Amino acid sequence: MLKTLKKTKDSKFKISEELCEPLENSKKTYVKSNKFKNLSVPMREIKIEDEDQKSVMVYDTSGLYTDKSEHKDLSVGLKPIREPWLKLRNNIGIENKHPLKYLNKKNSQGLIFPNTKKKILKAKKNKQVSQMYYAKLGEITEEMEFCAIRENEGREKEIRNGFSKKDLVSAEFVRNEIANGNAIIPSNINHPELEPMIIGTNFLVKINANIGNSAVWSNTREEVEKLVWATRWGSDTIMDLSTGKNIHNIREWILRNSPVPVGTVPIYQALEKVNGVAEDLNWDIFKETLIEQAEQGVDYFTIHAGVKLEYIHLTVDRLTGIVSRGGSIIGKWCLAHHKQNFLYENFEEMCEILSKYDVSFSLGDGLRPGSIHDANDKAQFAELKTLGELTKKAWEKNVQVMIEGPGHVPMHLIKENMEKQEKYCKKAPFYTLGPLTTDIAPGYDHITSAIGAAMIGWYGTSMLCYVTPKEHLGLPNKDDVRIGVITYKIAAHAADLAKGNKGSYHRDFLLSKARFEFRWKDQFNLSLDPETAQNFHDQTLPSEGAKLAHFCSMCGPKFCSMKISHEIKKESKESFDEMSKKFRKLGGEIYLEKKKT
Amino acid sequence: MLKTLKKTKDSKFKISEELCEPLENSKKTYVKSNKFKNLSVPMREIKIEDEDQKSVMVYDTSGLYTDKSEHKDLSVGLKPIREPWLKLRNNIGIENKHPLKYLNKKNSQGLIFPNTKKKILKAKKNKQVSQMYYAKLGEITEEMEFCAIRENEGREKEIRNGFSKKDLVSAEFVRNEIANGNAIIPSNINHPELEPMIIGTNFLVKINANIGNSAVWSNTREEVEKLVWATRWGSDTIMDLSTGKNIHNIREWILRNSPVPVGTVPIYQALEKVNGVAEDLNWDIFKETLIEQAEQGVDYFTIHAGVKLEYIHLTVDRLTGIVSRGGSIIGKWCLAHHKQNFLYENFEEMCEILSKYDVSFSLGDGLRPGSIHDANDKAQFAELKTLGELTKKAWEKNVQVMIEGPGHVPMHLIKENMEKQEKYCKKAPFYTLGPLTTDIAPGYDHITSAIGAAMIGWYGTSMLCYVTPKEHLGLPNKDDVRIGVITYKIAAHAADLAKGNKGSYHRDFLLSKARFEFRWKDQFNLSLDPETAQNFHDQTLPSEGAKLAHFCSMCGPKFCSMKISHEIKKESKESFDEMSKKFRKLGGEIYLEKKKT
Repeated sequence: MLKTLKKTKDSKFKISEELCEPLENSKKTYVKSNKFKNLSVPMREIKIEDEDQKSVMVYDTSGLYTDKSEHKDLSVGLKPIREPWLKLRNNIGIENKHPLKYLNKKNSQGLIFPNTKKKILKAKKNKQVSQMYYAKLGEITEEMEFCAIRENEGREKEIRNGFSKKDLVSAEFVRNEIANGNAIIPSNINHPELEPMIIGTNFLVKINANIGNSAVWSNTREEVEKLVWATRWGSDTIMDLSTGKNIHNIREWILRNSPVPVGTVPIYQALEKVNGVAEDLNWDIFKETLIEQAEQGVDYFTIHAGVKLEYIHLTVDRLTGIVSRGGSIIGKWCLAHHKQNFLYENFEEMCEILSKYDVSFSLGDGLRPGSIHDANDKAQFAELKTLGELTKKAWEKNVQVMIEGPGHVPMHLIKENMEKQEKYCKKAPFYTLGPLTTDIAPGYDHITSAIGAAMIGWYGTSMLCYVTPKEHLGLPNKDDVRIGVITYKIAAHAADLAKGNKGSYHRDFLLSKARFEFRWKDQFNLSLDPETAQNFHDQTLPSEGAKLAHFCSMCGPKFCSMKISHEIKKESKESFDEMSKKFRKLGGEIYLEKKKT
Repeated sequence: MLKTLKKTKDSKFKISEELCEPLENSKKTYVKSNKFKNLSVPMREIKIEDEDQKSVMVYDTSGLYTDKSEHKDLSVGLKPIREPWLKLRNNIGIENKHPLKYLNKKNSQGLIFPNTKKKILKAKKNKQVSQMYYAKLGEITEEMEFCAIRENEGREKEIRNGFSKKDLVSAEFVRNEIANGNAIIPSNINHPELEPMIIGTNFLVKINANIGNSAVWSNTREEVEKLVWATRWGSDTIMDLSTGKNIHNIREWILRNSPVPVGTVPIYQALEKVNGVAEDLNWDIFKETLIEQAEQGVDYFTIHAGVKLEYIHLTVDRLTGIVSRGGSIIGKWCLAHHKQNFLYENFEEMCEILSKYDVSFSLGDGLRPGSIHDANDKAQFAELKTLGELTKKAWEKNVQVMIEGPGHVPMHLIKENMEKQEKYCKKAPFYTLGPLTTDIAPGYDHITSAIGAAMIGWYGTSMLCYVTPKEHLGLPNKDDVRIGVITYKIAAHAADLAKGNKGSYHRDFLLSKARFEFRWKDQFNLSLDPETAQNFHDQTLPSEGAKLAHFCSMCGPKFCSMKISHEIKKESKESFDEMSKKFRKLGGEIYLEKKKT
C-alpha cells in the first residue's frame, strides 16, 4: 500500500510519480475567482457514470502534488501561489532574518533545505497584517475568497440537487466569521506555498495529522513523505511535532513543501536549546524560538499559556497526571521556580510577535485528561477558563485563535466540553484530540477516538486532531498515517452530515446511488479511500467482470438484496389482483429500472 | 496474526493449540454459584502487577476452548454443561426428530457432523419451557443465575474500588427483567453446550459477529474456526448467515461447537428449499425449517414478520430500496402474490413453535435504511410499529423477543430510533446493525458504524451487530472478523462507560494506572487485544527492556510527559519559597512516587 520517494538520476529529491498520481478517475481542476484574477482554487473532480451527473467536485487537500503539470522536486518546494497576493499588501515589508542567539550548530543538525530564502516578510512598523485585522476593517482578502470558493466544492454553477444559493458560503460570510473570531485562516505571510483553508464551526469540519520525528526514530525524508501522504488522503493541516537536534531543518523542508497550514509546539524546540532541562527555559529563549519559526512560515503555534502555577496542584490526585508534553514541561518549570508560567506572564508580547506574521494561536490544553478517570476535572476546566481570557487578549491584538481540547472523555461527558469551551472562549474555534471514549484499546485508538471526534464535531468542534492506531504505543508509519487520516475524515464527514451540510450529504447520495445501481467503480471512486475499497472487493471477486456484475460477494447472484430490491420498484399504485398479474408478467422483479425523465 | 486449525494424526478435527492458547498472563477461572451446585461461571483472570490488586477478572466469551483441561476436538463438540440443569425440568420431554419433508439430499450437502444426537428436547404437551415462562412464575433458573454471576465479573467478594453491593446484578433482578421482557437469555433447550448470557439494556452491552458461507465462497472448517476466533476476541453471540446447499450441516457443526448463542435467518434456508424462487415460498416449508433449526438448537431466529404488504410501496422512492436480504425476499413474495406476508399471518403459530424449544425472536427490520438518504423514513418506522404489536403477541406466549434496528443513520437521527423502539416495542431489547453514520467509506465501515453503535448503545441498545471492514465489498476473513469484533467491543465498552457501569470503568482505571506507572505488560494485557498492542509497541521499541522502560517511543526518554508528570506529584500544600527549594532538592521531578498506604 505504501509508496516511497524514488531517487532518480535527475534529482535525488524528485518525488515518486506514484505518490502524486491522481486517484482513479480523478483529476485536478481549478475554480476561478470572479473577484481576484490571480486566484483559482484547486478541486478534485471525480468522473462518474451517474445518469444525472457525469462528475462531482470534492474538496482537495493534496496540493500541487496531484497536478500533473507541476514539478515534483522536494528540494525546490511548492510554487508560492500566495506571493502575488502578498506583494500587493502595503502593510507587509521585506526584512532580514532575526539574528538567532540560541540556535547553534548543536541544536540545528540534519539536512539543510537548499533553497531557503534570505529575506522574510513581516508587518511594517506600526502596521498590521493578520486576516483578522483585514476582516475587522471590512476587507476581503484573497485568502478569504479562496476559502469561500473552496468550501463550496464547485457548486456555484450547480444550483440543483436540493442546493440553493443560500447553501453557498460567500467571501463576505468568511470575512464576518474571521472578524468575530468564530473562524480562523491560519496563514503565515512567510508560507506563500499555502492553499488557504478555514477552521470554524460554520464551515466543513477539518482534520489535522501529526507528523514529526522523535529522539527514538527520525528521518527528514520520511517526514516530508508523510506530509505528502497525509494531505493526499485528506488532512487539512499538519503539525510538525519533531523533537531532537534537527527540528529547525526538518521544519524548513516541511514548510517549503506543504500546501496545508503547518502547526508546531515551539516549546519542544525551546527545550532543545536548553538541552532538555525544563527549569532552564526562559522567555528570551522562547521568544527567539517563536520568531525563528514565524520567519520560517509556521501557520499556528500551540502555546500552553493556560497552565497556571495555581492549577498544577489540581492534577495531583489525577490518575494520569499531566499527559500533554508541553503542559508537563511548563508544570515542571512553574514548580521549579515557583513562579507563574512565563507564557502567561508574557502573553501580550507574544501576541505582538504573532501578529507581525499572522501566526495563529492554538491555545494548548496542557492539563487535558489522559484517562477516562481524569475527564472533565477541575484542572481541565480551570485551564479552559484561562484560555478564554487569553483569547480576548489575542483578539484585541487581532491575532487569530483556536482552542485545543481533550483527550480522554467518556461519551456522556463530551457535550460539557463543547458547551464550556463555547461559553468560556466566546466561540473561538475548538480543536480537539479525539476525544478517546475508552482507555482499554491501545492498538485501536484511532477508533476509540473517532467515536468521540465524530460526536464533538457534531456538537460544534471545528477541527479534529487525528489519532493513529499507534497512539500510546509507538510512532505511526505511513500506513498508520493513512488509517488515521481516513478514520478522521469519516468522523469529520459524519459530523458534517449531522450538522446538515448539503454538500456533504450529496456525496453520500451519489455513492449510495452508485451502490444501488451496481456501479462498482463509481462506488470505489466516490469513497474516501478508493484503493482500499477496490482492493477489499477484489480479494473476494477479483475479475474485472465482477465490477460490472449486478451482485456482490456477500450474497452471491441469487441472494443479493440490492438485486431483489431492484425488482420491486414501480409497482403499488394499482389494484391488488391486477398488480399480482402485472408483477409476474413484468418478470417478477421487485424494482423496475427507474424511468429516465 | 491468523492461526489455523491443524490436521494432526490423532484427529483431523483437533483444533490447533494456538487458537485456544489463553492470552498472555490470563487464565480461565470459574466462579461457583451458591444456589446451584452444578453451576460455575467461566471468567478470564488477568494477572497484573498493580500495588493494590494482583489480578482482575473479566467477562469471558471464549468458552471451553481457553480452558487448558478441556479437549479440543471439533467433531465431538463442546461439553454440554446445561444438560444436568435441563434434566431436572419436568416440563421438558425427549422426542424423536420431526420428519423433514422438504430437506433432501440436494439441499443438505456438505460435511456431516459425526456425533449428531438421535433425540431432541421439546416442551411436553401443554407445558412450557421458556426462560420467560419460568421468570413470570417467579422461578430463578440456572441460566438466570449464570447470567447474574457472569455480569458481575467476580466482584461479589470484592466490595471495594468504589463498588458496593448495590452495583451487583442479582439473579432475582435478572428474573424480573426477563419476566418484563426487558431482557432475554437466548437459550434453546437443544443447545446444551451454551454458556448462557443476557441481552438487555440494564446489563452489559453485548455484540454479535456474523459468520457464514455464501454461494460465492464456502468452507465448513473455516466457518467453525471463525466462530472460535470471534468468541476468542469477545463476541457474545454469533449469527450463522450461511446460504447455499450445505446450510444444514454447517449449522450443526457450529452449534455443537458454540459456547455462545447462535442466531439464524431461517428464510435463507427455506429459500434454498424452493431453489431460490421467492414466489414459491410458503408457510409449510418455512414452518418445517423453523422446526428443523429449533431441533438443532438455534437460540434465536431473525424473522421478518413486520414487512407488511402495505409498507412495500413506502420503499419505492427510496434511494436504496430494501437492503435486508430477508426483507427483500418477503417483499418479492408479497408483491408476487399480492397477499399479506405469510410470516405476519402465521405469527401466532410461529410463537407456539418457538415456545416449545425456547427459541427467541429477533424480529428483523426488513425495511431498514441502506443509505443515509433513507434513514428514519416512513417504511422503517411503519415496520417498527408492527414489530411492537408482534412483540406483545410473542410475550403472551412467553416467547422471548428482541428487535432488530438499522442500518445507515446520520448521527443526529440516531436517538429517534432508540426512542421510537422503546415506545413501540415496550422496552424489548434493541439489537442494531451499526448504525453506519456515513455511506462514503467502504473499506472502513467497521469505523463508520462503530460511531453509531457506541452512540445507540449509550442511548440504550442492548446488543450491537458488528460490521467488518469488508462490509459492502466482500466476505470477511479471519483478520476482518477480529477487527470487527474488537471494534464492536470498543463501541459496547464505550457505551457501558457512558451508562455509568462501574465494573467497566474499573478496567479503564487499571489500564490507565498501568500506563502511568509504565507497567507496559499490564497495559497490553488489560487491553481488548493484547497481541496487537504489544506488536505495535515492539515495532518501534522491540527490546524486552523497553517494556520496563519509563518512557515510550512517542517522545523518547527526555520528553515523555508521563515521566515528567511523575515528577510533579506530592508538591503543593506548602508555601511558595519552601516549595521551590524542596522541589529542586527532591530532584525536580514533577510527580513523586505515590506513597504506599
